[in-house]
Amino acid sequence: MGIAVVFFAVCLPSGADEGMWLFNAIPKKQLSHTIGFVPSQDWLDHLQHASVRFNSGGSGAFVSSNGLVLTNHHVAASSLQKLSTPENNIARDGYLADTIDKEIRCLDLELNVLRSIEDVTARVVSAVAGATNSAEAAAARRSVLAEIEHESFTATGLRSDVVTLFGGGYYHLYRYKRYTDIRLVFAPERQIAFFGGDADNFEFPRHCLDICFFRVYEKGQPLTVKSFLPFASNDVQQDDHIFVAGHPGHTDRGKTMAEIQSMRDRRLPFSLEWLNRREVLLQAYAEEGHVERQRAMQDLFSVQNSRKARSGLLSSLLRPDIMNRLENTEHDLRKQWNKGEQESPWNRISLAQQTIDSLAVRYNLLEGAMGFRSQFFSNARTLLRIVEESGKPDGDRLREYRDSARSSLELRLLSNQPLYDDYEILKLTDSLTFLVNTLGLDDPLVSDVLDGKSPAERAIELVAGTRLGKRGDGPVSTAPDRRREILNGGRDAIEASDDTMLSLAQLIDSESRSLRKIIEENAEIKKQAHAELIRLRLETSPAAIAPDATFTLRLAYGTVKGVTGQPSELRPWTTIHDLFTKADTEKNRSPFDLPESWRDAHRALTESNSIETPLNFISTADIIGGNSGSPVVNTTNELVGVIFDGNEDSLVLDIAYDNVRARAISVSVGAIMKSLEHVYDAKTLLTELREGLQ
Amino acid sequence: MGIAVVFFAVCLPSGADEGMWLFNAIPKKQLSHTIGFVPSQDWLDHLQHASVRFNSGGSGAFVSSNGLVLTNHHVAASSLQKLSTPENNIARDGYLADTIDKEIRCLDLELNVLRSIEDVTARVVSAVAGATNSAEAAAARRSVLAEIEHESFTATGLRSDVVTLFGGGYYHLYRYKRYTDIRLVFAPERQIAFFGGDADNFEFPRHCLDICFFRVYEKGQPLTVKSFLPFASNDVQQDDHIFVAGHPGHTDRGKTMAEIQSMRDRRLPFSLEWLNRREVLLQAYAEEGHVERQRAMQDLFSVQNSRKARSGLLSSLLRPDIMNRLENTEHDLRKQWNKGEQESPWNRISLAQQTIDSLAVRYNLLEGAMGFRSQFFSNARTLLRIVEESGKPDGDRLREYRDSARSSLELRLLSNQPLYDDYEILKLTDSLTFLVNTLGLDDPLVSDVLDGKSPAERAIELVAGTRLGKRGDGPVSTAPDRRREILNGGRDAIEASDDTMLSLAQLIDSESRSLRKIIEENAEIKKQAHAELIRLRLETSPAAIAPDATFTLRLAYGTVKGVTGQPSELRPWTTIHDLFTKADTEKNRSPFDLPESWRDAHRALTESNSIETPLNFISTADIIGGNSGSPVVNTTNELVGVIFDGNEDSLVLDIAYDNVRARAISVSVGAIMKSLEHVYDAKTLLTELREGLQ
Repeated sequence: MGIAVVFFAVCLPSGADEGMWLFNAIPKKQLSHTIGFVPSQDWLDHLQHASVRFNSGGSGAFVSSNGLVLTNHHVAASSLQKLSTPENNIARDGYLADTIDKEIRCLDLELNVLRSIEDVTARVVSAVAGATNSAEAAAARRSVLAEIEHESFTATGLRSDVVTLFGGGYYHLYRYKRYTDIRLVFAPERQIAFFGGDADNFEFPRHCLDICFFRVYEKGQPLTVKSFLPFASNDVQQDDHIFVAGHPGHTDRGKTMAEIQSMRDRRLPFSLEWLNRREVLLQAYAEEGHVERQRAMQDLFSVQNSRKARSGLLSSLLRPDIMNRLENTEHDLRKQWNKGEQESPWNRISLAQQTIDSLAVRYNLLEGAMGFRSQFFSNARTLLRIVEESGKPDGDRLREYRDSARSSLELRLLSNQPLYDDYEILKLTDSLTFLVNTLGLDDPLVSDVLDGKSPAERAIELVAGTRLGKRGDGPVSTAPDRRREILNGGRDAIEASDDTMLSLAQLIDSESRSLRKIIEENAEIKKQAHAELIRLRLETSPAAIAPDATFTLRLAYGTVKGVTGQPSELRPWTTIHDLFTKADTEKNRSPFDLPESWRDAHRALTESNSIETPLNFISTADIIGGNSGSPVVNTTNELVGVIFDGNEDSLVLDIAYDNVRARAISVSVGAIMKSLEHVYDAKTLLTELREGLQ
Repeated sequence: MGIAVVFFAVCLPSGADEGMWLFNAIPKKQLSHTIGFVPSQDWLDHLQHASVRFNSGGSGAFVSSNGLVLTNHHVAASSLQKLSTPENNIARDGYLADTIDKEIRCLDLELNVLRSIEDVTARVVSAVAGATNSAEAAAARRSVLAEIEHESFTATGLRSDVVTLFGGGYYHLYRYKRYTDIRLVFAPERQIAFFGGDADNFEFPRHCLDICFFRVYEKGQPLTVKSFLPFASNDVQQDDHIFVAGHPGHTDRGKTMAEIQSMRDRRLPFSLEWLNRREVLLQAYAEEGHVERQRAMQDLFSVQNSRKARSGLLSSLLRPDIMNRLENTEHDLRKQWNKGEQESPWNRISLAQQTIDSLAVRYNLLEGAMGFRSQFFSNARTLLRIVEESGKPDGDRLREYRDSARSSLELRLLSNQPLYDDYEILKLTDSLTFLVNTLGLDDPLVSDVLDGKSPAERAIELVAGTRLGKRGDGPVSTAPDRRREILNGGRDAIEASDDTMLSLAQLIDSESRSLRKIIEENAEIKKQAHAELIRLRLETSPAAIAPDATFTLRLAYGTVKGVTGQPSELRPWTTIHDLFTKADTEKNRSPFDLPESWRDAHRALTESNSIETPLNFISTADIIGGNSGSPVVNTTNELVGVIFDGNEDSLVLDIAYDNVRARAISVSVGAIMKSLEHVYDAKTLLTELREGLQ
């Protein structure tokens, strides 16, 4: 993180370029006014069908008619990690399948392609209308959502998710085609994909080739795709208009001040304490040697990324200018409220938030499993609950156990990801220690969990006695995997089992469920209040309003543009040449060290006049975490880049849009082609991509 | 940290080899019984006068008649850091003065050599006897201590510190010769001094050349030294008896269970939260580039070291077996108490501890300056208080401002260490954020401190507006240094100053002092209670008892010995050959990368038959932080090694001795000589060291 020595005012809210828009409700007037181009329905349908959601948390797009998908290396990273070993470290060293039979199937990756969106708000609202309290309402809402999803899934065979929009104001049914046979085609080395490491994360200038190619298979064959995005033949120019189709994960722009303050004073400090703790733990473990580094690297990156994002957001929330703007906006809206303060949505949200806050730490430790960090525990709880929840009507279950989500859930539960005893013990020891420090040794549950042992001893015992995962390396245990047996055996198998993790999951389940029930009832109160708020906002706003992000497909738009007063003002991109210069300046020391392939390719890149090719460019598109891997297209729906990050000033986008200093960062397609040709000699892949250009 | 898969019982308390003994009270009976050797008074005097305290926090010893001092690289590190720049990075790359005129003077290093110890308990006790409450007692105690020190300093010209022993049971006056012209002679590269980095810290096997040579000067000439320790000509052998003379910083073995529980449940979790936070901050900053790395590296090492030590100690305190042993010991002692529970020392300590706990967080943020991490702030507060305290009688002042400590205080205050704006802003922003998160934005003091700005904006403003330090690089300010002017100008200069940091120090000073006053009154209650406890313990213990560590000279003893069941059982040392093997196994990747000098010297080391020379050895000596750099001698007072660390199991030593698995780790003198000869070609230094051998 660079120290920004001078603070510029962030203009909040700024209409231009704001919004992560629903594909069924794009802001035509705003688009026409701002960039003078309104996409046609065909244009939108094409982009929608070419867009891919990575359920591991990210976005991507089809880039050939044979199911080739382009995304970020860091979106692919958890899948690459699961395919890696210390000896064959694909996540670190990269991979190229130069023939189709060398493409490697991922262990548990699921991709979704959005087929349709249907507004089901009326049905949801009417189902909830009869409820006399929030517990009844929450149950009715859960029930109608499961019913809609179940009907849709039965009728279409498509994954069917009802998405809650505007914090509870609207409900849309999203239908997806699921793909689970996903194979790795090409990944560059982590050094170049993540050049600059944590230091450069959320920064610009950047010099990353943060890309990865997969191929989607169906019935053992490459998927034939009608809608895919051809690579544009020209690089982006200053002031080009671009569109981004991706899956932003979460924003908080519709939150009330009570919720924002809770985030600032409680949620963010608590999660940063936790993230700092984990970062130190994983960093220290990764330093122990190359085996440990391989095991922990992916988790470490993920923790560092969250830490930097949340830390940046917290900084924004501690800025009086930003908080004042948000307060003023709320104040203006409150003036439109003409009933009593007692019944106002803000007051109801504030009270519900207080209840949530009072339970949040305990809830996070138990239901959020912060106190039990081990994949073995996670598997144990999923098994325990699958069995329990399956015995209930679909609509009465905890939401993630509904029928329509079952196959995705099983894919994750039965993953063949290898688990390593030492690493599981490390994480579990630390999280049990956190549990003890936070709740105290005298807490009855803590006492039951530790069972008279220290956190370290207890963690060893728990890992030694579980059979709920595939073991990669077990100095403590070589117990065989029993997940499928428990899953098939149901309640009897659970009762007969002496698995330590299953016992632990049972031990905490009752309290964990009780906490969740209270939290969900208060979330229901907030949903009803937010539904009123969005009606009020829509009634009083002159412009269209986009709902907060929900990890569903959205359209953003913007301009290729630097930041006034910064070097990017003149040239809002970096080049391949800049990459070499940066590595030289930092003496090729980590995290600014080039992989051998790139050092070797310097001459070929120079001689082929590729050295000045734009590598990463910035734009004003409104994006956030989850957008990683999103296709960036021009007005003719050609691919010009792949989103991989935002700059530091973009971290404020969680709570408010800014186009003065916040920027999205993309890998430029020109640099992808040049590197495939001159660095990786990836002939087959190049041919496939160029066919799309014809 | 390696995961210890099996837990061995730690034998607590174990008499053999326990104790950091006072040089004026060595346990003759125990020594005679355990190792069959009782040092003579001459032997003790010689070792005492050859031992050196590094006031930056560590130990060392004279190793030639010309004032040459040997210590650890990590003890020297803060001094090396202050002499380094990104271009001439001595801390990283090492240094060799091959002629005497190339020896470089340190900026603010003070060494002390202990001249005498005098028991002043009776005088302290009688001065306090008349007090009617703890506030009066604390004042009387502070006053008599300052009086004794002042008298001694005036009479002898020696630095005079009254040391509180056994938590308040005894008071000894320590007189030191101070040296402040200390010059760097030789430092190896950080890579070899700290080979294995944080991963190997507190671990054995180890492969470090953690050494550094300084020379003490007086009146511009090398100091002539009568008592120095010649290098032993033979390497240590299995079961050799050894002695360690050093300055262990702090232990908690005399603490009551109430104090231990407070440490486990409050102090350690809080300080670990803080250390994790700082480690992440500094690590991220250091990754930004070589300039940033140079600035932050020393602080980062220091934080990592504290984090690992405290985390290990917390693990010990969460072990029921250890806590049960400590409880039983207290329980047995309580049986000896024949007055009421209400008046018992344990009860009084427990109540005082509760009061301290209730204020500790706020106290740490303000008086401990956790909320204001910048050397500029530290300088500002010292200046403010020097001026205020100087106007009071010596005995009424805050203890660190007494006359007898003034010259050491000024040495630190006026240090020429360069300060970098970006780094000071980084630390200050983070600590202000911590302050806000911990006390809340609504806290009146927080509100005054932030002055309507965000932590980041306020930090920039504070750093831009201060002149209280030497600026190394100031993108924010190039304001000249005004420390000496303020110091000389006194109260008028402070009142006339518009320095931002001085204003901040003034803003918090009143509350900070109030908190300190309450804490000190309760510490006084604990001191009186501990005085009773130690009398009870001495009356009832069959063996001698050593007081808890106080960063004063102590004698420990032990045996060169591995751990049963571990590879070290057969050979309690590593060799130079093992070092090369470890680097090979880890593919010479950081933190297991050898410096070029060592890679180049492999042949010379092999051909000179040096490759099997012991590099690091372990022993059962009772040591802790502060002992780093301590000379390890044989029964004939020859130097056989230099302490530089303990193993992971030694972290329990803070609360209880263990000789089953806890071990001290030393650099062996043989390896020092071999590396000076074959790696560094340090002819002059070798000649000087060998003369000592004649």
